[in-house]
Amino acid sequence: MNAPSTAVEVPRGLAGVVVTDTEIGDVRGEEGFYHYRQYSAVELAESVGVEQAWHLLLHGHLPDDDELRDFREHIGRLRVIPEVLDRLLPELCEASDDPLQTLRTALSVWGSATGLRPLYDCDESETLGSALAAAAVTPTILAAAHRLAQGLEPVPADPSLGHAEDYLRMLTGRPPSARELRAVEQYLVSTMDHGFNASTFTARVIASTGADLAACLVGAIGSFSGPRHGGAPSRALQALDEIGTVDRAADYVRAKITAGDRVMGFGHAVYRTRDPRSEMLKRTALGFDDPLVDLAVAVEDTFERTLAELKPGRPLFANVEYYAGVVMKLAGIDPSMFTPTFCVARVVGWTANVVEQSRDSKIIRPAARYVGPPAPQPVPTRHPARTTP
Amino acid sequence: MNAPSTAVEVPRGLAGVVVTDTEIGDVRGEEGFYHYRQYSAVELAESVGVEQAWHLLLHGHLPDDDELRDFREHIGRLRVIPEVLDRLLPELCEASDDPLQTLRTALSVWGSATGLRPLYDCDESETLGSALAAAAVTPTILAAAHRLAQGLEPVPADPSLGHAEDYLRMLTGRPPSARELRAVEQYLVSTMDHGFNASTFTARVIASTGADLAACLVGAIGSFSGPRHGGAPSRALQALDEIGTVDRAADYVRAKITAGDRVMGFGHAVYRTRDPRSEMLKRTALGFDDPLVDLAVAVEDTFERTLAELKPGRPLFANVEYYAGVVMKLAGIDPSMFTPTFCVARVVGWTANVVEQSRDSKIIRPAARYVGPPAPQPVPTRHPARTTP
Repeated sequence: MNAPSTAVEVPRGLAGVVVTDTEIGDVRGEEGFYHYRQYSAVELAESVGVEQAWHLLLHGHLPDDDELRDFREHIGRLRVIPEVLDRLLPELCEASDDPLQTLRTALSVWGSATGLRPLYDCDESETLGSALAAAAVTPTILAAAHRLAQGLEPVPADPSLGHAEDYLRMLTGRPPSARELRAVEQYLVSTMDHGFNASTFTARVIASTGADLAACLVGAIGSFSGPRHGGAPSRALQALDEIGTVDRAADYVRAKITAGDRVMGFGHAVYRTRDPRSEMLKRTALGFDDPLVDLAVAVEDTFERTLAELKPGRPLFANVEYYAGVVMKLAGIDPSMFTPTFCVARVVGWTANVVEQSRDSKIIRPAARYVGPPAPQPVPTRHPARTTP
Repeated sequence: MNAPSTAVEVPRGLAGVVVTDTEIGDVRGEEGFYHYRQYSAVELAESVGVEQAWHLLLHGHLPDDDELRDFREHIGRLRVIPEVLDRLLPELCEASDDPLQTLRTALSVWGSATGLRPLYDCDESETLGSALAAAAVTPTILAAAHRLAQGLEPVPADPSLGHAEDYLRMLTGRPPSARELRAVEQYLVSTMDHGFNASTFTARVIASTGADLAACLVGAIGSFSGPRHGGAPSRALQALDEIGTVDRAADYVRAKITAGDRVMGFGHAVYRTRDPRSEMLKRTALGFDDPLVDLAVAVEDTFERTLAELKPGRPLFANVEYYAGVVMKLAGIDPSMFTPTFCVARVVGWTANVVEQSRDSKIIRPAARYVGPPAPQPVPTRHPARTTP
């Protein structure tokens, strides 16, 4: 129904329109704060690993020792790539050098091959099982896609390892150092969820139709790949690469601001303060003692000072992309895998949201307003006759 | 942002919430009327072919002779399956016997292999080109998936044929009769678009992020596959199969209504009158002179009379699924391909909606309201230590 008699007028893009209740988390942009369940996401990233945060988002509470051991073992087994994908991935990677597109296709096949049933027909336990399986196999698919694109053999998953450690090992072919691992684990925990972003919303719209979990995830990946969605840490790193050295920062930043160009890695739609994810990742980056960190800090500092001078009263701060790119680079991740690594984390949030949405039987289905010429007008008879008898 | 300070309260499921303006069409449920652009969709289905209605929805006007010839030739060429899909489809069909799931995967690969760029980077002409190509290749993929699932070789597209005729030929392996073709063409034209349904909305949400067209379509197919989306003409035909003969209709219908069970094929969320699509397809079915049509008419009549007797004042009418199943069966389409055939039509509406959405730079991103325990609460230290140093 497009123009219902009870049409409700709302802001463009549904901005601020409350579409659902959630217990998963929230972003408080004015305060520079976001949380998973009742815990600060930044505090979680600094104190727990991927498995605990994942358990919290999906099941609603931090695991105790026994639950954590079971959870780790369970997702370790689920990380192993099914035979059908192992066979198909080389051909899928020939069709695309974008790991996110390969993931979109691979999760679609995976859903079919594993016989996922519509959420409409699943009880909570079956839905949770699919949610865990899909999120667990995602890093394996992405790492394999990356290696295949480079002409390398995929590294099989090792169910005995932690999720973050195994991902890095499958991606780079070597065990990560303790510092690399901890840095990436913090990044992953801090980006699993972030309010009602467009990809999360997409996953929930599809879930509201009662479709299967893979259908929800391929839609979410689609929205996630959109340039307006945000989340491309490699762009910010490219800017740092362009600048090259600390002494060139001032000229670069001033030229960009004067020209009215955007400096990648600065500014956020929601946060009016420093991005709490960026603040945390900056601390993580500083642990690396690398010239890239010095450059990033200098550029951030120069940007804030120059902006205050040229556009006073309109501050912009480093967003999550800015230090995320630095941290991932220092952890040995190729820039082409920055956004896919973001996806390794965010798939946890998507699946937790799909599980929550699956408890609601109401389809999400808004309306549009018809603004074309009044209808009906008679179909003209002078147009060509129909093509069939 | 989940709980914005400017939160807007709206009906559950965004019902009646106007998310966008559209010039594509509208459904006027109270009047039992829907239209494409300024023309009655039913009048179009009775007077023009697939190509004209498609041109109208995508380009905004009915084609003249030259435009129609060019359009037919263009989509004829685009119907031919690309080599990469021809090679992959047998393996994709091994992973799934559901043609819609195969289409979801295949369009994802297709988007990658044809190098679709994000809508964000496309001008209108590039977006229109992708929209035509995706909708044109859809019946070829679906027909091939159906034949492969039966152990048959796919029938290659014939660019010289009309779209509906070629689809039926690829599906059944034989040229359709004039009556079969005209019946299916009417069905396809009448189901290309129908207001702001959940799959159309999904396609537009993904398009609003600036993602590529394939991303929009795999999301739309996901929502389309959801049991709450509607559009499963085989269910209504199954009910007719269960009844079997006219003399058993009265007992069947009375038992269902008394038990409070739904009779498949009756009732619609929007129409308060007879479904205009059902009315037209009934006329189409009556042209076939087949016992199935007699049964369908008798069951419809029995249902309406029995409902008026047992639940006076609460009429339900045959919906589009009811006579759609009858028409497709009579046209030689296997019931497993009823919903995929619906998709052959609806992909035209999805792509037209994506093209329209791509002109709007505003991302569709509503909010959620956090209703869990207040945050932040300190992360407990007694839970297991993090898994990494």
